[in-house]
Amino acid sequence: MKATTLSTSTTPGEQFRAGFTRHIIHTPQLLTAVLDVDGGPWAAPDPFHSHPHEQITYVVDGDILFLAEGQDPIRLTAGDLFAVPSGVPHSIQLLSVRARLVDTFHPIREDFL
Amino acid sequence: MKATTLSTSTTPGEQFRAGFTRHIIHTPQLLTAVLDVDGGPWAAPDPFHSHPHEQITYVVDGDILFLAEGQDPIRLTAGDLFAVPSGVPHSIQLLSVRARLVDTFHPIREDFL
Repeated sequence: MKATTLSTSTTPGEQFRAGFTRHIIHTPQLLTAVLDVDGGPWAAPDPFHSHPHEQITYVVDGDILFLAEGQDPIRLTAGDLFAVPSGVPHSIQLLSVRARLVDTFHPIREDFL
Repeated sequence: MKATTLSTSTTPGEQFRAGFTRHIIHTPQLLTAVLDVDGGPWAAPDPFHSHPHEQITYVVDGDILFLAEGQDPIRLTAGDLFAVPSGVPHSIQLLSVRARLVDTFHPIREDFL
């Protein structure tokens, strides 16, 4: 198996929902989606969602509110991260006009491929 | 188990080698190390290294050369990524003065904790 690379500046992303574009790279057990969101700020958070996959997100750019069920919401900005164990309901609210989030999952999100 | 967050701007990183500082966050099966490297550019790449862990890296800032054994080196800059399957020998060469890399691994790097 070979190493691979991806350029988000020269490769078109996939718009999978209005205001949401993503670029995906993966190995057998690890998947990263670079998520560009625009059309903010949002008046309210997205509804909570959960998945068996563990997730770590790095905020490259923008301001978000990170929400996990039963925990205080926390404002995150460029250089901040959040980590979500398997099955924990979570959500974000976009507080800036746009944001770039780097979402990495284990196992891979078959639903993204 | 709870979700967690990390701010790399307000939390001190760990300098684990001259010119290398990292911040770490993890779930049971996923670990992200935000790596700040300075003292570049380097005259040559680091020696190849490998690990059983799968790795995906996002380049936040800076310019690097990414090398994987048996493959052509490729220059990466902000917004680019590389993905390394288990056991593939790989390395980087820092081409700019500094860089920030977001390295995510599965399983977690027990040697980083």
